[in-house]
Amino acid sequence: MNPDIQKERQKATFEVEKLTHILDGGPEKTRRRREIESLVINDSDFKEEDPNFLSRSERYDQAVRKSAQMILKMREYGIADPEEIYCYKSCVHPGRPEPFDLHLGMFLPTLLNQATPEQMDRYFMPAWNLEIIGTYAQTEMGHGTHLRGLETTATFDPATQEFILNSPTVSSIKWWPGGLGKTSNYAIVLAQLYTQGNCHGLHAFIVPIRDMNTHQPLPGIVVGDIGPKFGFNEVDNGFLKLDHVRIPRDNMLMKYAKVDPDGTYVKPPSAKLTYGTMVFIRSMIVGESARAVAKSSTIAIRYSAVRHQSEIRPGEPEPQILEYQTQQYKLFPVLAMAYAFTFVGQYMSQTYHRITGDINQGDFSELPELHALSAGLKAFTTWAANSAIEVCRMSCGGHGYSRSSALPDIYVEFTPTCTYEGENTVMMLQTARYLMKSYRQARAGQLLHGIVSYLNEADHQRVQPQLVAARSTGIDISDLSGLVEVYKLRAAILVELAAKSIQKELQQRKSQEDAWNNSAIDLVRASDAHCHYVVVKLFTDKLGEIDDAPIRSVLSMLARLYALHGIMNNSGDFLLAGLLNGSQVLQISARIKELLSELRPNAVALVDAFNFHDRMLKSVLGRYDGNVYEHMFEWARRSPLNSTEVHESFEKYLKPLRSKL
Amino acid sequence: MNPDIQKERQKATFEVEKLTHILDGGPEKTRRRREIESLVINDSDFKEEDPNFLSRSERYDQAVRKSAQMILKMREYGIADPEEIYCYKSCVHPGRPEPFDLHLGMFLPTLLNQATPEQMDRYFMPAWNLEIIGTYAQTEMGHGTHLRGLETTATFDPATQEFILNSPTVSSIKWWPGGLGKTSNYAIVLAQLYTQGNCHGLHAFIVPIRDMNTHQPLPGIVVGDIGPKFGFNEVDNGFLKLDHVRIPRDNMLMKYAKVDPDGTYVKPPSAKLTYGTMVFIRSMIVGESARAVAKSSTIAIRYSAVRHQSEIRPGEPEPQILEYQTQQYKLFPVLAMAYAFTFVGQYMSQTYHRITGDINQGDFSELPELHALSAGLKAFTTWAANSAIEVCRMSCGGHGYSRSSALPDIYVEFTPTCTYEGENTVMMLQTARYLMKSYRQARAGQLLHGIVSYLNEADHQRVQPQLVAARSTGIDISDLSGLVEVYKLRAAILVELAAKSIQKELQQRKSQEDAWNNSAIDLVRASDAHCHYVVVKLFTDKLGEIDDAPIRSVLSMLARLYALHGIMNNSGDFLLAGLLNGSQVLQISARIKELLSELRPNAVALVDAFNFHDRMLKSVLGRYDGNVYEHMFEWARRSPLNSTEVHESFEKYLKPLRSKL
Repeated sequence: MNPDIQKERQKATFEVEKLTHILDGGPEKTRRRREIESLVINDSDFKEEDPNFLSRSERYDQAVRKSAQMILKMREYGIADPEEIYCYKSCVHPGRPEPFDLHLGMFLPTLLNQATPEQMDRYFMPAWNLEIIGTYAQTEMGHGTHLRGLETTATFDPATQEFILNSPTVSSIKWWPGGLGKTSNYAIVLAQLYTQGNCHGLHAFIVPIRDMNTHQPLPGIVVGDIGPKFGFNEVDNGFLKLDHVRIPRDNMLMKYAKVDPDGTYVKPPSAKLTYGTMVFIRSMIVGESARAVAKSSTIAIRYSAVRHQSEIRPGEPEPQILEYQTQQYKLFPVLAMAYAFTFVGQYMSQTYHRITGDINQGDFSELPELHALSAGLKAFTTWAANSAIEVCRMSCGGHGYSRSSALPDIYVEFTPTCTYEGENTVMMLQTARYLMKSYRQARAGQLLHGIVSYLNEADHQRVQPQLVAARSTGIDISDLSGLVEVYKLRAAILVELAAKSIQKELQQRKSQEDAWNNSAIDLVRASDAHCHYVVVKLFTDKLGEIDDAPIRSVLSMLARLYALHGIMNNSGDFLLAGLLNGSQVLQISARIKELLSELRPNAVALVDAFNFHDRMLKSVLGRYDGNVYEHMFEWARRSPLNSTEVHESFEKYLKPLRSKL
Repeated sequence: MNPDIQKERQKATFEVEKLTHILDGGPEKTRRRREIESLVINDSDFKEEDPNFLSRSERYDQAVRKSAQMILKMREYGIADPEEIYCYKSCVHPGRPEPFDLHLGMFLPTLLNQATPEQMDRYFMPAWNLEIIGTYAQTEMGHGTHLRGLETTATFDPATQEFILNSPTVSSIKWWPGGLGKTSNYAIVLAQLYTQGNCHGLHAFIVPIRDMNTHQPLPGIVVGDIGPKFGFNEVDNGFLKLDHVRIPRDNMLMKYAKVDPDGTYVKPPSAKLTYGTMVFIRSMIVGESARAVAKSSTIAIRYSAVRHQSEIRPGEPEPQILEYQTQQYKLFPVLAMAYAFTFVGQYMSQTYHRITGDINQGDFSELPELHALSAGLKAFTTWAANSAIEVCRMSCGGHGYSRSSALPDIYVEFTPTCTYEGENTVMMLQTARYLMKSYRQARAGQLLHGIVSYLNEADHQRVQPQLVAARSTGIDISDLSGLVEVYKLRAAILVELAAKSIQKELQQRKSQEDAWNNSAIDLVRASDAHCHYVVVKLFTDKLGEIDDAPIRSVLSMLARLYALHGIMNNSGDFLLAGLLNGSQVLQISARIKELLSELRPNAVALVDAFNFHDRMLKSVLGRYDGNVYEHMFEWARRSPLNSTEVHESFEKYLKPLRSKL
């Protein structure tokens, strides 16, 4: 054990194990997580070469091998609960998506939700047993977020009782689905349904794409890998071009909508039913943001405790870089963010399950709010986490740039969350639509419930953005509830500013749509402020649930730092609205520095509490024992470029060059 | 040609070619750049496979092949001017560093600057003719920015007239030098010089590391590649462990410092001489920031002109995504930044050459300011560019994540500039040290010259950060010189706040060093504000040099957008200091929206003016002809994973799995 990091652990003012339980959701959850982790860690079938040393094809190959093993083992161990499957999978492919992700996460669930009983009989068991490996082909090369724009057609031919699936243009080629390129032999294809000369919009079709025995593409199918990406090297994101491919009528998923044998189209009973999955996935992504930030801050803070550099006081030995105020200012707000997002993720997951219960009872009343919240928080947390990972990487100096730090991998695997499952700006605008609707309702005297109820309060309407700072808001910035209050008022004011921007555009005789587009910057800001308020509020609420005094104390420091740091980074909003005055902002700046010092002794313990096993973290810099340099050297020597002392390019190019110059 | 992008070009209000000349520094420079580009583009010896389709070893191999060709061709064409070498090299390895970078950029120049005439005779021609390929080994595994912390020793043994070079610890292993791992057979090693029992600090030694004929490492040398990184795949960044390696006395570079045969150490005459190189490299990096942002915005803006998505007005066809206000708000400030940084880069280069002239005349007076400015601007522009590249990538939706967009490559090759040649936070603190010194001088009544002369003005000292916004500054935000003025005042105030923080710490009986560290956040903010002021000022100054009215008009829009966007992102500073009031900030927000609309027709023309040849840009999304989708499909089909229809993993893992489940 590195003596520096050992000393850090001795300075902790709280019991790390207890905090781990809180983060896991209880001691029993911690126990079970560790049990599953050790199942994987001690299983020699999951031994692997560092993917960073492999070619793309080798990486894919290794991932398929491990995924196949994973399916076998989960059956063997009886791991079937979705949360436990997720945990096991995360251990087998730590931090990396894998080729079966869409089969398990989209193909099987879509069958469960949208297949008729006959279709279930035909497809479910083969898919469960991986004879059928499926993917979910929605996105096209030219069409993403806007589903109505998708071009793939499914035209019903009553003469043969078949649908003809077709990609009419290059831009209509299905593009991006994971596992489509090489792994899958089936795809659920989303296509515009045409029957009796009318288009009925997007519907889902089960399309065989490769021969079950030879795995060769079927006639009319052009399928392959879309090529290298920033990350996701283990996944064969694919393309699919359909040239008048015929499938039987009963390959349309017909649990809700139907096409009768004569071509008559039967509408689905409700559109709300597909709503839930999106909300669920976006809520999960909030948890992913937390995990990515937790991992990154673990690596950067542990490394900052063992790395010595430069000098603060002349003549003294080089200090740990964690002693530098600038380093603390980079990393401790990220640490606070990791805790904030973890608790927000827990809240989203609990709320989802609660509301799903209500929905099953036929009560949809809370769904719109959750939908809006999950969209906004997905965008808010992924954007913040995305930047935070890079702050952590760059805080590790040059070594953060080495793949041995794991930070480049964390970034490239995480950053697509800003784009997939709803592009972030579009998500923010969805939340804004809900906020604008709620604002209009509040103005019309309707009493709002839930998280937007603050729009009822007339209080903020007295705040005039133009006449700032003369007023004193009397908000106590040393008090967390005071901070929640200013975030709430900021959100209310930015919602109002966005609404007024739309009004102004309308008064200038713009259409509703142009008014919206011309106010989009303000709308995104309003959503951002709303989400920020929710995060600060949920973090503060969480403190009330914590009995252990030393833990509550240190978490309360993190909550304060999170809130105050957010104010500093957006101080213009608070000053403009007169929610804070200049002297309060200067006090906040001073208070942040104090909090950095106060958190310093607990920094390593706070990342230890995330309890990432070294095998899950896979970072030379983030090792629990702090023995960074020896292992970095060892790792480097295994680099494929070192497999020979002299690279072949010497004889091929360098030596011959001499005689030519 | 894609009709959308064609229409965009027809909307331009200025002559693109004329603006290209301004960006290149004159029509003759444009002509010569294109001449060099076409030398490379039309040369079949430089044909290459997309490196994204290759393994690490293949990438390195391809780069060595091209670099060897490059050296031959430059000799053949007589390309010898440093600027032209740089241009040719950038065409051969567009956007990518290569294995000879340190040989050409550090090994040869260090010989030129620090070798004695005898050493020049012995080493220069072999190095020029690439018999000797060298690198510059300074950074160690445990030591970067702080040079005094380096551990490698060079101990003089008078008995044998040799230096003994040694790596006493793991952390002292030389780490990171480019070309060290596999390419070089020599290294200039920086080591702590010991003679007659005393340490005389860092000195440079010429150390042979591989056999000239076999290329095998020499006895006592452990050398290799440090393993995969985020980017820099073409470069064999290496490690070097020296186990009591003996080299003759005259392998120390002795132009300045010397060790006599009896071991007597002779000091160098001046320390300032090595100053210049650092300043030069940091100034160059400002230009690199400009180029990275220019490339990224070219890709994102062209793609946004051909990509159609979603709807603004119902029933109408999907609009170009460049119509969305949110998309403009992401990309046009980045475009403005590309222009700003280009002009700052030109200024830094001109200033460097002017001051170098002065230095050669013995006049060092302007060096400290340039040193401080180059450090701060290096940090300011690389941080800003780093974020801007990712804004561009994410603005391209999923396709930005594909390596075919080139945006991931631009990011990974650019991001190390934030760390190397002086870690950015350290750079900001260096600039802050100069600002604090200047501030104290100004307070002591000394008249400051140059760019910090604003610290003389007593004006800002009347601004009381605590009493904001009541006052009206009377600054006209519609006037560029007014904007320069507020940036200047903001810098002055933040310099003062930092100085006061230090004073306060000192009053609390902290040592000078602790006071500095406890004010580091404020110091970085002060430097940042100083650099921001410089950038706004230089952009504004540049407009005055431009005769062409349509070009001046559109550049002036960009300058305004750059300045106003910076105010919005830092509005707290301006409000806090009472430099702007709330209603002005709201006006600025509205004015930004107007500028986005005003710039919209010229957006594509403004990126066209950067004049990146498609072969240099290497981006499917950024193609000049806008034919994105066809080429994306074509590129994907060349992906190595598509070399067979059925990947071997099917027979190995997937098919056998069926019988086991």
